[in-house]
Amino acid sequence: MKASIITIGDELLIGQTIDTNSAWMGAELSKSGFDVYRMTSIHDRREEIIYALAEAEGKCDVVLITGGLGPTSDDITKQTLCNYFNTSLIVNDEVLRMIEGMMIRRNFPMNENNRRQAEVPKTCRVLYNAAGTAPGMWFEKSGTIFISMPGVPGEMKYLMTEHVLPELNRRFTSQIIIHRNIMTYGTFEAKLAEILSGFESALPENIKLAYLPASGVIKLRLTGTGIDHDSLSDSINSQVRKLYEIIPEFIYGEDEESLEMVIGKLLRSENSTLCTAESCTGGEIAHLLTTVAGSSAYYKGSVVAYSNSIKTQLLGIKEDTIIENGAVSEKVVSEMAVAARKLFKSGYSVATSGVAGPDGGTDSKPVGTVWIAVDSDKGTVTEKRVFGNERVPNIKRFSLAALNLLRKQIINQ
Amino acid sequence: MKASIITIGDELLIGQTIDTNSAWMGAELSKSGFDVYRMTSIHDRREEIIYALAEAEGKCDVVLITGGLGPTSDDITKQTLCNYFNTSLIVNDEVLRMIEGMMIRRNFPMNENNRRQAEVPKTCRVLYNAAGTAPGMWFEKSGTIFISMPGVPGEMKYLMTEHVLPELNRRFTSQIIIHRNIMTYGTFEAKLAEILSGFESALPENIKLAYLPASGVIKLRLTGTGIDHDSLSDSINSQVRKLYEIIPEFIYGEDEESLEMVIGKLLRSENSTLCTAESCTGGEIAHLLTTVAGSSAYYKGSVVAYSNSIKTQLLGIKEDTIIENGAVSEKVVSEMAVAARKLFKSGYSVATSGVAGPDGGTDSKPVGTVWIAVDSDKGTVTEKRVFGNERVPNIKRFSLAALNLLRKQIINQ
Repeated sequence: MKASIITIGDELLIGQTIDTNSAWMGAELSKSGFDVYRMTSIHDRREEIIYALAEAEGKCDVVLITGGLGPTSDDITKQTLCNYFNTSLIVNDEVLRMIEGMMIRRNFPMNENNRRQAEVPKTCRVLYNAAGTAPGMWFEKSGTIFISMPGVPGEMKYLMTEHVLPELNRRFTSQIIIHRNIMTYGTFEAKLAEILSGFESALPENIKLAYLPASGVIKLRLTGTGIDHDSLSDSINSQVRKLYEIIPEFIYGEDEESLEMVIGKLLRSENSTLCTAESCTGGEIAHLLTTVAGSSAYYKGSVVAYSNSIKTQLLGIKEDTIIENGAVSEKVVSEMAVAARKLFKSGYSVATSGVAGPDGGTDSKPVGTVWIAVDSDKGTVTEKRVFGNERVPNIKRFSLAALNLLRKQIINQ
Repeated sequence: MKASIITIGDELLIGQTIDTNSAWMGAELSKSGFDVYRMTSIHDRREEIIYALAEAEGKCDVVLITGGLGPTSDDITKQTLCNYFNTSLIVNDEVLRMIEGMMIRRNFPMNENNRRQAEVPKTCRVLYNAAGTAPGMWFEKSGTIFISMPGVPGEMKYLMTEHVLPELNRRFTSQIIIHRNIMTYGTFEAKLAEILSGFESALPENIKLAYLPASGVIKLRLTGTGIDHDSLSDSINSQVRKLYEIIPEFIYGEDEESLEMVIGKLLRSENSTLCTAESCTGGEIAHLLTTVAGSSAYYKGSVVAYSNSIKTQLLGIKEDTIIENGAVSEKVVSEMAVAARKLFKSGYSVATSGVAGPDGGTDSKPVGTVWIAVDSDKGTVTEKRVFGNERVPNIKRFSLAALNLLRKQIINQ
């Protein structure tokens, strides 16, 4: 079962709006067993729309189309669909009643633009839209289903959930697709691929492996296709178990789990607490930890000691220690972690000191160097890492490295 | 001048990754005067890649391609480009040296996969990538330029900025397009549009206004087209001056300036310093401030007082004050700002306390409520804001509101 997605709107092509609809629809179609083989974004231009429709006709089972259904003159999708399917617009009384009801509720007068939104192509099946004023439209031609929906994400999602997906699932008793994501940290994509080359080549025909790296986290995605859900699920699970045997030291979680989410779960299960003392990461570790809902249960806070005087004053690091070792040193970062844990009376502490760049690098401590320390009842562990040249990516990479060292220390890895 | 964008990767089609690259490239090409007439996302599949390349060949001037250049076996773009352009892979010594240097710095051994990343199609022009291991590749055929880049956003942006855009701008002496961005904070898009409706309708034919909102910042983009640079520039400048007359209270900067960059400039020019005391924003303000290169010159650090005991212990807020007023209160946030400024001995301080959600809201302080205080020699100012229901967007909005209150206090607005 093949599907294609077409999103229409000038704002997409000039990059003013990021197309999030396609990813959402792609994920839903994929869950229903469709292979989305192409996503296309085009202008609100008649010839581009016609070209995109013709390209899909007869080639795939379903084409989802969003955008260009608004009431203003730059929206031409409805008229173009009439041309393509050789039909004309008529007023749909049910849609008109729905729009009138909506305008009354919002205390707006009906105008000519609203009335025009109740016009639909004569030959389409209308998908009533309780989330907005533009209805969805369902056409079939040459064995291909074309479904046109508004580009407003909430309205598209309403129509997909209420009308489109249930109907597609009824009509296409489908091939099943299962995805499983294994989250890893601690090595490079190329290295991981080397370690997993044997695993990958031994995968059954219907299971595929993909690598999705971001800031040091590499997501491994197993995608299986089959006809029986249970046997496919068993088959993927056994591959996941193999991964846990081959790379236990790199796997930290599954699905879309972040390091900070995993750390939250670990600290809750230990009933422990955490604080941070950040220099070069400047609050990013605290920020990541506090994006997790409920983090106040285990996260006590941070000293962002951006200037050396604050390291001395708030964390009690001796000036001589900083002068002798440099602020970016194992000695200073260890003392920061120990002092922060005392100050915040927490079970664990994490400290960072490094050179995020662009300035401040030296021959022995180039831009990209970071020292990390984790302190707890188990003692103090430290790690030195060297990353790249760019400030903002460095701050993110330093922070993830610190979170991973903390995670390993919590689980005694 | 026509352009097309092709993004390659299974993760896009199954909706696991939202394609942000296309929008970024679309915006950049559009700034350079290109009409991006189509964006296409396709699988890592040979026949799909070939089809997409063939569709664009001869039809447009430039095709930007991202994705499928990783070292793992699911990445097939490079080999497919060889097939399409009828060439073969050779090792590029310069790329190999760059990869080796990168691996040495990160203290990782080279492996076969890394070495394979130094292979490039014989007939392409190599675009050296200092931001990663996969180089960019430049091909020309039938009057169309094809440029293949990695899908990692940072690497794509590096190659675009350093190599692709400068070269395209040299080769296509085009109609002149000038963009000017005016950065505003402090009102809503619909309200701003109402205030500026007269301004907008009086704009000359060749100058257009767009509204680009994000987390409370609204970027106003003026885009002018013409043939003479100086007269177009004069014409846009006079419109910008009008904007400064109509909405002086909302404009905080120009181009891509963030609030934290503007604050950095202001503090440097005053030779003053800053610290923060964050509760609900959990380090995000510190993080935003320290993404600015050189921020250590004026930013001293932060106390992230996530738990109330830290507010008491580190900032000296009396327990009774918290019990009487609640942690989310004008009284507590003022005391946090005053205490932090003393502790860090800084010229200015910013403090936040609020309910980011999803839990912790009450009838009088619903999720989305934040109290902000700024303290300096000029005294203490406070502000209460109420935003939405979602945790992560709230953290961002709280932080920007705090930065803006600080900015206004520095410039005595």
